[in-house]
Amino acid sequence: ADPPVLLMDEPFSAVDPVVRKGLQEELLRIQDELGKTIVFVTHDIDEAVKLGTMVAVLRTGGHLAQFAPPAELLSEPADPFVEDFLGADRGIRRLSFFASGELELETSPVVPIDADAERISGAATAPYLLVTDADGRPLGWAEPERLVAGSVDKGQLLSYGRPFRPGIDSLRTALDGAVLSPTGWAVAVDGDGRAVGVVSQQAVGEAIRAAHDEHRTDEHRTDAKAAG
Amino acid sequence: ADPPVLLMDEPFSAVDPVVRKGLQEELLRIQDELGKTIVFVTHDIDEAVKLGTMVAVLRTGGHLAQFAPPAELLSEPADPFVEDFLGADRGIRRLSFFASGELELETSPVVPIDADAERISGAATAPYLLVTDADGRPLGWAEPERLVAGSVDKGQLLSYGRPFRPGIDSLRTALDGAVLSPTGWAVAVDGDGRAVGVVSQQAVGEAIRAAHDEHRTDEHRTDAKAAG
Repeated sequence: ADPPVLLMDEPFSAVDPVVRKGLQEELLRIQDELGKTIVFVTHDIDEAVKLGTMVAVLRTGGHLAQFAPPAELLSEPADPFVEDFLGADRGIRRLSFFASGELELETSPVVPIDADAERISGAATAPYLLVTDADGRPLGWAEPERLVAGSVDKGQLLSYGRPFRPGIDSLRTALDGAVLSPTGWAVAVDGDGRAVGVVSQQAVGEAIRAAHDEHRTDEHRTDAKAAG
Repeated sequence: ADPPVLLMDEPFSAVDPVVRKGLQEELLRIQDELGKTIVFVTHDIDEAVKLGTMVAVLRTGGHLAQFAPPAELLSEPADPFVEDFLGADRGIRRLSFFASGELELETSPVVPIDADAERISGAATAPYLLVTDADGRPLGWAEPERLVAGSVDKGQLLSYGRPFRPGIDSLRTALDGAVLSPTGWAVAVDGDGRAVGVVSQQAVGEAIRAAHDEHRTDEHRTDAKAAG
């Protein structure tokens, strides 16, 4: 049998978040291979936004409240019902569609744990330095003066949160890294987990505004095109 | 029957997010009244963090991976398994425990839609002004020069995102409002939905860092107390 449409009714709702993430990625891979239309029912907004090409939001009685691509659903909910349905994290969820590749990374605050005082002083314009191991993997944040004094051991470094991979992860992951870190800076790593730079929450905020502007300009272009 | 402990096994997993939120709040209200210990099983991290006084994370085979208050679980996951389990939004989820009451609101960029040119010019140091209706409810953002020229109607205002209630909502809601708004500013409203001020994403970021610092100082105090 080769039905034209598959129906999946809340297939992942009873599994834990780690397994669910794996199943979602496997579904996207299979869908990419088969190219078959799947009607996927879920109560999990993140799941709908991650998996859907188009998302239909239904209100009580099965009436259609909105039918839109995920990014549009998040940026322009049709009415207060849809807005409530999308929940209090709509802005942050929307950042999943904003790329992190254009963030300007700063490399000078990144220093290896065995750096000498001269190297540290050179980097010391930043309020905190990201200390890495000999392979360049992040260990944590330290204040420059304490590093120079040699009074910092690994156990005293401040947590660096959760790093992001520039160009692969979205601005949502970069922002999460910045707000998770007590320094307000996010750590960028390459595919091998080596620190490639750091970026302030403020710089992430500027990238978010730039992405909003770009999105608006695109809309105006589309409007002009439609009118022309 | 009045059992000493109630077991609820994924009671809200099959309902939509709006209904779920209502049920969660009702459960908190009942729990507050009865003061009974409830063992609540869920796969929804946000639900666990919102409802639990203590949260137990179980790994494969039912072994306990971590048992901690929600805020500690988010700030200090015990191992990579728990960290993965908490997901990519751990930093943002943690902001639910940071209060928004100390954010410094700016009121000068808030102007009523019928403001005269003089009033607008007085507020015009901000890149965008928040336009409100006659009752003070937010309508949207406009550039000051376009407002002065009288060339702005309601349909052309930029979306003001989702407002937050200072002191009631957390910094998570304030940050969401800021990243949702194309201007990068969040709108604060009172209980009647009237704009009481605006706050930049940068100011929200500074409040987040201050909350981190406070949390660290508290920890050190606790350490000193335990040692003393």
